[in-house]
Amino acid sequence: MTRMSEYQAKHFLWSVQGRVATVTLNRPERKNPLTFESYAELRDVFHALRVDEEIKAVVVSGAGGNFCSGGDVFEIIEPLTKMSMPELLRFTTMTGDLVKEMRACPQPIVAAVDGVCAGAGAIIAMASDLRCGTARSKTAFLFTRVGLAGCDMGACAILPRLIGHGRASELLYTGRAMTGEEAERWGFFSRLCAPDAVLGEATDLARGLAEGPSFAHAVTKRMLHQEWAMSLDDAITAEAHAQAVCMATQDFRRAFEAFAAKRTPVFEGN
Amino acid sequence: MTRMSEYQAKHFLWSVQGRVATVTLNRPERKNPLTFESYAELRDVFHALRVDEEIKAVVVSGAGGNFCSGGDVFEIIEPLTKMSMPELLRFTTMTGDLVKEMRACPQPIVAAVDGVCAGAGAIIAMASDLRCGTARSKTAFLFTRVGLAGCDMGACAILPRLIGHGRASELLYTGRAMTGEEAERWGFFSRLCAPDAVLGEATDLARGLAEGPSFAHAVTKRMLHQEWAMSLDDAITAEAHAQAVCMATQDFRRAFEAFAAKRTPVFEGN
Amino acid sequence: MTRMSEYQAKHFLWSVQGRVATVTLNRPERKNPLTFESYAELRDVFHALRVDEEIKAVVVSGAGGNFCSGGDVFEIIEPLTKMSMPELLRFTTMTGDLVKEMRACPQPIVAAVDGVCAGAGAIIAMASDLRCGTARSKTAFLFTRVGLAGCDMGACAILPRLIGHGRASELLYTGRAMTGEEAERWGFFSRLCAPDAVLGEATDLARGLAEGPSFAHAVTKRMLHQEWAMSLDDAITAEAHAQAVCMATQDFRRAFEAFAAKRTPVFEGN
Repeated sequence: MTRMSEYQAKHFLWSVQGRVATVTLNRPERKNPLTFESYAELRDVFHALRVDEEIKAVVVSGAGGNFCSGGDVFEIIEPLTKMSMPELLRFTTMTGDLVKEMRACPQPIVAAVDGVCAGAGAIIAMASDLRCGTARSKTAFLFTRVGLAGCDMGACAILPRLIGHGRASELLYTGRAMTGEEAERWGFFSRLCAPDAVLGEATDLARGLAEGPSFAHAVTKRMLHQEWAMSLDDAITAEAHAQAVCMATQDFRRAFEAFAAKRTPVFEGN
Repeated sequence: MTRMSEYQAKHFLWSVQGRVATVTLNRPERKNPLTFESYAELRDVFHALRVDEEIKAVVVSGAGGNFCSGGDVFEIIEPLTKMSMPELLRFTTMTGDLVKEMRACPQPIVAAVDGVCAGAGAIIAMASDLRCGTARSKTAFLFTRVGLAGCDMGACAILPRLIGHGRASELLYTGRAMTGEEAERWGFFSRLCAPDAVLGEATDLARGLAEGPSFAHAVTKRMLHQEWAMSLDDAITAEAHAQAVCMATQDFRRAFEAFAAKRTPVFEGN
Repeated sequence: MTRMSEYQAKHFLWSVQGRVATVTLNRPERKNPLTFESYAELRDVFHALRVDEEIKAVVVSGAGGNFCSGGDVFEIIEPLTKMSMPELLRFTTMTGDLVKEMRACPQPIVAAVDGVCAGAGAIIAMASDLRCGTARSKTAFLFTRVGLAGCDMGACAILPRLIGHGRASELLYTGRAMTGEEAERWGFFSRLCAPDAVLGEATDLARGLAEGPSFAHAVTKRMLHQEWAMSLDDAITAEAHAQAVCMATQDFRRAFEAFAAKRTPVFEGN
């Protein structure tokens, strides 16, 4: 098993500082489009993070003032127009698997969104746990503009829960861009940052989480996922069991002892 | 099977221009209340739209500056007070079926909401896919005011997903009107329009959708519906299959070819 | 069976005026923390309300300008750090049962939130049906600050439905306080009140509900709960049956007769 702190990425930049890994989509001259290869590598990286014991939070960003322009027209869309149904399904399953891996890895993922955030780029932002954005950013679920449905990589499930079902419907049916101001007002972005500060603020947020009780954060992430379509009574029961496990961690004891001693707790994620 | 472009409605106005049909509730002297007959005809019209191949979007509006005042007090509520349980259940099943048909037909439905939008009128707006409204509109889920529960025609399921569970609870428990400003701020309306512009803007929005990739729009609508209570992983898998089908459409190829030729794509819905 | 109008509470204040009961968490010198005993008594009180026929709405408040500071550090957290897993599970099951009882009792619950509203206090506000708050209030789901997960007493299920999944994620992962202004803007509070008015406004709201069609309100509450994870078609069918029952109540007839006579209806909850 590769230690992800030593991983060498081929199709994007991958850097690790302490407990925080940063993915930087890095084809700035094209606004960081995805390719078949970068989709697959992203999926594999988030899959590998499931069992990595060093990295406790992930930042996803784009180089050169844009987040990600989505699937490249000539590198992805053109080949798709020539594929058979089994090949198409292999592609949509791969892209869906990227979102599944992002939701399944225990690390909280913070997206730093500036500039263009379109198509699969908008999906990657949506599939993150938290999003910092800029006022000038444009987040567009523009699948309809290329003749496709809004149901791409979980968008019809996730986007309504983030911004409301009516607003999500408008974005998915029309493909229009959501402005940064709308994204903050509607709950897509946690905050608006200056363009030159957004990556730093997202990284600070990720570092804060990584230095926190990361075992418990992973439980939070898993329960947000599991309770997605659970009855309320079942969800409450499931949380009772999940939280009892967290109460048996050393981090819980550390927090109490720090409080009693009027110290700031130092969490170790166990 | 009636071609809906030639349908002659009895209990409301029905007009078709190109691919867009418009329902106009048309008893303006009473603020467009519903009757047993108009409920049933609306249900049947949306049912017929399931298999209509010409109409690709629907606008719902009201005549004379109001959307709809809901079930008429003397034409509906009084008779209901005298019905047996099987008769009552036949009525509530019929009204519920109207919402089911609105959610099941493949055409996106755009409501143009001005003035009074109350009771079953508020439900029809809620059950549409998109809503344009006016600042002066008053949307009231006022069932509690007539001694009934807020759970009318899907309101306890749909309204919380549109505006949030707490806001929906307040409206359903108190029956108070949501102002136009609140409706926009809370995500019920996609936009606020001037009273003399709201029907035009809703129609433009519907026409834009009807001239878009309507096969894909129908898939978007179906998946938003199917994923309502699906686990997130299942939803992502379902979307992979649904989107792969859209990638096999001519509209997807048309979009790519138009992009490559720097043209605007012309979609045909197949 | 105790008549709850005559109940003598041990661990908080309990008062009943007409059809409205008020819980006042009353350890103001400590900002009204919870103890094992007050958790259990709250759970038992809401359980008893299931079959009480006099009380039709409940207000939950805190004494001395704060709502509730959550589980006390020395009375709850310290003992928890020393418990075995079965003991921990007994505790988290008890706290989860409090939320289940709040959701299961037929009375709408209105929280009056001022000052500190933290941990289990934030949960009690969240688990209420409606919330009035103040601008100066601070609502903090701060479980992560003590090394625990955000999945406490249903928070990962309920909070995303109230304020959106992204905002809920931020609050649950970071433990930061939601300001009163945010709480209103995000749909957690129905309204912001002045500190000296919040209890009065919450009580007026509760009284209005208690004097309304309380049988129907209980149906609204039950259906909001049941439809939490139901498919949309099933939810619409369930509402047809639930509303038909409400149409057979005397309150429905009373409302019609009052309307016909241009009187204000007087509801009796049957």
